[in-house]
Amino acid sequence: MTRPRVVIAGAGFAGLTCARALKRAPVDVLLVDRNNYHLFTPLLYQVASAVLDPGEIARPVRQLIRPLRNADFLLANVTGADFEQHRLLTDHGPLAYDYLVLASGSRSDYFGNASLAKHAFGLKDLDEGLAVRNRVLMRFEEARWTDDREQRRTLLTFAVVGGGPTGVEMAGALAELTRLVLSKDYRDLDLGLVRVVLLEAAGFLLGTFAEPLREAARRSLEKKGVEVLLKAKVADVAAGSIRLVDGHEVPASTVIWTAGVRASELGSALGFSLGRQARVDVLPTLQVTGHPEVFAIGDLAGPVGDGSPLPMLIPVAMQEGRHVGVTIKDLLRGYGATNFRYKDPGIMATIGRNSAVAQLGPVRLTGFLGWLMWLFVHLINVISFRSRIVVLVNWAWDYFFYDRPIRLIVRAADDRTD
Amino acid sequence: MTRPRVVIAGAGFAGLTCARALKRAPVDVLLVDRNNYHLFTPLLYQVASAVLDPGEIARPVRQLIRPLRNADFLLANVTGADFEQHRLLTDHGPLAYDYLVLASGSRSDYFGNASLAKHAFGLKDLDEGLAVRNRVLMRFEEARWTDDREQRRTLLTFAVVGGGPTGVEMAGALAELTRLVLSKDYRDLDLGLVRVVLLEAAGFLLGTFAEPLREAARRSLEKKGVEVLLKAKVADVAAGSIRLVDGHEVPASTVIWTAGVRASELGSALGFSLGRQARVDVLPTLQVTGHPEVFAIGDLAGPVGDGSPLPMLIPVAMQEGRHVGVTIKDLLRGYGATNFRYKDPGIMATIGRNSAVAQLGPVRLTGFLGWLMWLFVHLINVISFRSRIVVLVNWAWDYFFYDRPIRLIVRAADDRTD
Repeated sequence: MTRPRVVIAGAGFAGLTCARALKRAPVDVLLVDRNNYHLFTPLLYQVASAVLDPGEIARPVRQLIRPLRNADFLLANVTGADFEQHRLLTDHGPLAYDYLVLASGSRSDYFGNASLAKHAFGLKDLDEGLAVRNRVLMRFEEARWTDDREQRRTLLTFAVVGGGPTGVEMAGALAELTRLVLSKDYRDLDLGLVRVVLLEAAGFLLGTFAEPLREAARRSLEKKGVEVLLKAKVADVAAGSIRLVDGHEVPASTVIWTAGVRASELGSALGFSLGRQARVDVLPTLQVTGHPEVFAIGDLAGPVGDGSPLPMLIPVAMQEGRHVGVTIKDLLRGYGATNFRYKDPGIMATIGRNSAVAQLGPVRLTGFLGWLMWLFVHLINVISFRSRIVVLVNWAWDYFFYDRPIRLIVRAADDRTD
Repeated sequence: MTRPRVVIAGAGFAGLTCARALKRAPVDVLLVDRNNYHLFTPLLYQVASAVLDPGEIARPVRQLIRPLRNADFLLANVTGADFEQHRLLTDHGPLAYDYLVLASGSRSDYFGNASLAKHAFGLKDLDEGLAVRNRVLMRFEEARWTDDREQRRTLLTFAVVGGGPTGVEMAGALAELTRLVLSKDYRDLDLGLVRVVLLEAAGFLLGTFAEPLREAARRSLEKKGVEVLLKAKVADVAAGSIRLVDGHEVPASTVIWTAGVRASELGSALGFSLGRQARVDVLPTLQVTGHPEVFAIGDLAGPVGDGSPLPMLIPVAMQEGRHVGVTIKDLLRGYGATNFRYKDPGIMATIGRNSAVAQLGPVRLTGFLGWLMWLFVHLINVISFRSRIVVLVNWAWDYFFYDRPIRLIVRAADDRTD
């Protein structure tokens, strides 16, 4: 007798946690992802700011699922689904499923603004992180050999749009890269010309944090040399400048966009009813309406029942993944699906290498203490054991020397055509 | 009074060593390279076999020249030279020089065989190393989900052409990657189908080594599962197969070409008289005939005087770089240029993670002892101090666990167009 097959689309935190929750279940699990790796997204900004190498924040999916005897992996793009026949369609052919878990995450949202999509860098996946790193390093090289002072200033202005955790972390890391590392690499360049500008449409940074923490983050960024522009809503981006809605222009030759995120295209490709940010509407059980054997979790999943949508955070993704794993086991035993309930462990954002804000229930930490908490939580969450040691050694090295040799402009040669 | 300017084209072992030799000279040094990093080429095969990440075998040039107060760096492609006006031409404009040192290295040589150039991977620079890594990992993914056994076998056949040190090292590393790592990642794949084939046109491997060492290398490779095909001269390569001159076909969907190397195109671009392998003819002083202020060193430099050409090896490159640095100081003081004389420190090749052959004057080591010697020499030669520690830690880890999480198929997103 063949065992029921669970197909999980997406090997991020939601999908991987779901696969793990099914470890001892009498099912065959197939994880499908368009990349062969699981990405530790909280550290992506460190790849983008030339501090970590890809191998330090990503793990091959196959390595991670080795302990799961009932799991396998397929590198493929999901293109659609045939819900009647219980088949997920991919560019590697259709995959029959008994249970389908959709966990394809989110991507940058440029709100239909073509100039943004063309000139700004997203910061959602590893390829984008490497592209930002190449761009930033190239701009310094170009600025070194540019005689025109205005042009040099534009080349050395890095704009980060969006004052959420990703934007705050990226801006802090760029300021430190310049101040602590590139200042030594470019002795003859006037680094007073470097500007790291963080633009936020609201009147404050880190809108999901308590007010004192928002302020602490802003002060901490400014101390590191980041110009924080609040109430600065971007209208459009051209090569070399950003125009704000109020008419102001910010000359900047590199724009990193963290101000908009929407669910992956999978929801609309499958014809689901979508909520805000293109997230798939789900029942309180995380089942998709009308398809009791189909679940949506993580950033892809929208409002749970009639509640408001949960934030696009790793703890949400992991808890939802675990819940669906348990639910599938319940269903196999003939029980019903139970409702998902989120346990909020708190939120954090780091600002450079020695400062962070953390809000854990009633506990609020800032500065170095916040950073230690951030370090602790991220280390215990980094998925493989060795990674923890390596990342810790590298962080310790950075902390004391801030000079890892990662500032390489590398591009894999095009694949041979055959 | 402006100081004389030394322009060095190429930041490999030759160019970088020359810049270092000029550290205290009353000159301004400008290193020019098309990459912003110096590559530790002896470990490139470890990137290609998914053991090391680029940041572990490459260093930003700017970081390396920090101790050199009189040196700067330009990221540019050299396009030509105006020897009358003493200008090196680049895609970033002309560079005036008083002394010019050409050290642009070598590249893969397909001997005009279009099928090779199209279907085979070179293994000379970091981009190529990453491309090989992506290709090898993709082939395993494809093979896992291919039902046709013949096709699976072809997907899992990796041919390395050329039995010199690079070919031997690459074949050994691929065999170990399969046997020690991928066997765990692909439990359901019949890894008996995997073939790593090393093809060499001569009747022996490692032609520059003494006969007993050649034999030891062959046995060591075969013990690791590499099929060594001697007297196998490649006629052409198609998608999925290699045809030999004797008519035999080897079905292989990945071909890595290490059998031909020629000097960089710079020699012909500058209109020099070229010797074998397109290397620039130089005087015994390493000066280019007719241009006493122009030097060629490293892989680019051909027969020294009327001697036979020196091998394309790092010790040659470094010794030539040092010699030219000293010569330029001599010329500045009004002395003449002296002849270069190569001191041979010996040659080595590693076969996987615990075996190597080393030939150091009368001393010949094989197996584990050879590998310890290889490790020692490479560790003391890895250019930056931290790199040594990190590489050592990683090697120790590999040695015991052989499971670094580098098996990522990563491609930097295209740069934004502006």
